Amino acid sequence: MDSVLDDISHRRYNPLRGNWILVSPHRTKRPWRGQEESPSGNTLPEYDPGCYLCPRNKRSGGAQNPDYQDTFTFVNDFSAVKEDQDDYESAKSEDKSSLLLQAEGVKGKCYVICFSPAHNKTLADMSIKEISVVINTWQNLYRDVQQNTPFRYIQIFENKGESMGCSNPHAHCQAWTTSHLPEEPAAELHNLIEYRRKHNSCLLCDYLVVELEKKERIVAENDGWLAVCPWWAFWPFETLVISKRCIKNILELEGERDVELFAEIISVITTKYDNLFETKFPYSMGIHQAPLRGTDEEHAANHVHFHFLPPLLRSATVKKFQVGYELLAEPQRDITPEQAARRLQALSTDLYRNRLE
Amino acid sequence: MDSVLDDISHRRYNPLRGNWILVSPHRTKRPWRGQEESPSGNTLPEYDPGCYLCPRNKRSGGAQNPDYQDTFTFVNDFSAVKEDQDDYESAKSEDKSSLLLQAEGVKGKCYVICFSPAHNKTLADMSIKEISVVINTWQNLYRDVQQNTPFRYIQIFENKGESMGCSNPHAHCQAWTTSHLPEEPAAELHNLIEYRRKHNSCLLCDYLVVELEKKERIVAENDGWLAVCPWWAFWPFETLVISKRCIKNILELEGERDVELFAEIISVITTKYDNLFETKFPYSMGIHQAPLRGTDEEHAANHVHFHFLPPLLRSATVKKFQVGYELLAEPQRDITPEQAARRLQALSTDLYRNRLE
Ligand SMILES: O=P(O)(O)O[C@H]1O[C@H](CO)[C@@H](O)[C@H](O)[C@H]1O
Ligand SMILES: O=P(O)(O)O[C@H]1O[C@H](CO)[C@@H](O)[C@H](O)[C@H]1O
Repeated sequence: MDSVLDDISHRRYNPLRGNWILVSPHRTKRPWRGQEESPSGNTLPEYDPGCYLCPRNKRSGGAQNPDYQDTFTFVNDFSAVKEDQDDYESAKSEDKSSLLLQAEGVKGKCYVICFSPAHNKTLADMSIKEISVVINTWQNLYRDVQQNTPFRYIQIFENKGESMGCSNPHAHCQAWTTSHLPEEPAAELHNLIEYRRKHNSCLLCDYLVVELEKKERIVAENDGWLAVCPWWAFWPFETLVISKRCIKNILELEGERDVELFAEIISVITTKYDNLFETKFPYSMGIHQAPLRGTDEEHAANHVHFHFLPPLLRSATVKKFQVGYELLAEPQRDITPEQAARRLQALSTDLYRNRLE
Repeated sequence: MDSVLDDISHRRYNPLRGNWILVSPHRTKRPWRGQEESPSGNTLPEYDPGCYLCPRNKRSGGAQNPDYQDTFTFVNDFSAVKEDQDDYESAKSEDKSSLLLQAEGVKGKCYVICFSPAHNKTLADMSIKEISVVINTWQNLYRDVQQNTPFRYIQIFENKGESMGCSNPHAHCQAWTTSHLPEEPAAELHNLIEYRRKHNSCLLCDYLVVELEKKERIVAENDGWLAVCPWWAFWPFETLVISKRCIKNILELEGERDVELFAEIISVITTKYDNLFETKFPYSMGIHQAPLRGTDEEHAANHVHFHFLPPLLRSATVKKFQVGYELLAEPQRDITPEQAARRLQALSTDLYRNRLE
């Protein structure tokens, strides 16, 4: 990378999302006197009788959890989208109000997936084998909703930590299926398709080659996956994890070995994250892949990848705020992705919590 | 509005920004056990010797503030963009790495504007006259950078409250000028121009008419301005404040009366916000207007408006998190904009803090 970018303010382009990010490398010296997050404690019990996700406990809707042994999937008691609701067709007239007040109905279903019966185990605490079971659960759900529902997309995502709006430390992710393709995967799909038409190759395959050559933003790598702080990263320690094979969805992982490699890269990244500030590192994470149904071109243009979006900037308590300028003008970051990648790459893959014990 | 939208999940289109927002009206009953914000205290002193924004105090850069009497503008000691830096031209070759690793240099200048010498006065506490001086300061800055710098855009914005990343309760806003047009105003400008070409009228003028007719989302109104929870609002109590005259930038406000009307609508909204949960309501706020320089079409397509983006959802301590699904798939909201507008409209314009005294 041109080293002048370590010093000057500049913008970088995200070809996957199609937007620009303002980078201010010189701004890290800013003193911080604002809000601080509480560092996460290490002292959760293995079972919490008050937790609505622990095995055998009652949920607020009244249902009782089974005595599950690995993962546990159920329909969210407070789903953001519903399966059974009236249809909605907005009036398609030519007047200004139907032009400016457009709406369309959305049907869908929201699932919660507990990663483990243990109340105190995050992905970083779990074994490769245990994480593999989580991946198998994602695969089964993808297959199930693809075969048995009319929905178009499934967004699997995890909110981890209080500062990322997570209301229960018992590790879990969510999967929202919807009758439409949501904004973010739609924007990525659009750009993947355009790139393919123009260059007759896959944007993420090409990006993989570039990053493996440059070696400036690599965080971790194994035979199946590459994790980088992408050139266009917005969050301070954001990573993009790209499948080395150009698979379209997680059903195209082949056999146990592929799943294990996936589990391993998840384990490595979440462990490095926790080691960075010796805290249970908060983030939002999500998988982008082919729609459940779509055209052949929509399927072919995809390339499975996942995004980790962690807010912490300088310590376990000081995060980056995406506020005024970011919301109203343009995403902005302080440290460069190269600096972030160097720090993450150097970190151990032994979890600090285990060393301390 | 079709009342079925009060009950079903649906998406609404934002024609100004060009994106969709998922609305889940039935989801408000969700219990909350996650992070809570600390309600803001009411007990700030009028002068704080430790505050780097109070008159006569030293800032961390070493400069000393003057004994200012109304507003005070200075260049941010930790600016995100700089005026003096090397030029940067990225290599314009045809290979994949210059295609995928694009950057461009950004020059600019960041200002801080204190609203008042009083450490404990927010916009809601200030008189119409005092707010008018703030507006005059914005006008002077816009004129000054337009005449004396080469920059293309000025983004005036305020981050208020700890949860919006504000590190000092002494009321102030910021103005970042940049050599480029940032993403958000660029996207709006694009849509304003397209709308104008297609319909031969102004999107926001047309939207004004629709909202004044429907009367379903109005929060406040005076002779100069309309404040609504827009059809496509994303944040729970988001408001869009639109100038009734189609002015292109804040320099086109005519005379004292225009400025007073502007000050009044700011006062009404910030007061209603504070009254909603009887707290110093956090938000990010920003003004969108014509670029400092651009084509005639770019100038003509604009219509001055400002966005208030407040995070609180249910009380002074429970906010809406824009996390996993929102970041990775699509913006999502719980209460409808119509419900939010009804609550805000009903609120008094007498500040609760003054009633309590
Ligand atoms: O410049 P401030 O107020 O210190 O910083 C605040 O506003 C900036 C502009 O929205 C953000 O980049 C920072 O993350 C936020 O903490
Ligand atoms: O569904 P949860 O975990 O209760 O809620 C969390 O994740 C959702 C999806 O990102 C967000 O809409 C909520 O604001 C957040 O608190």
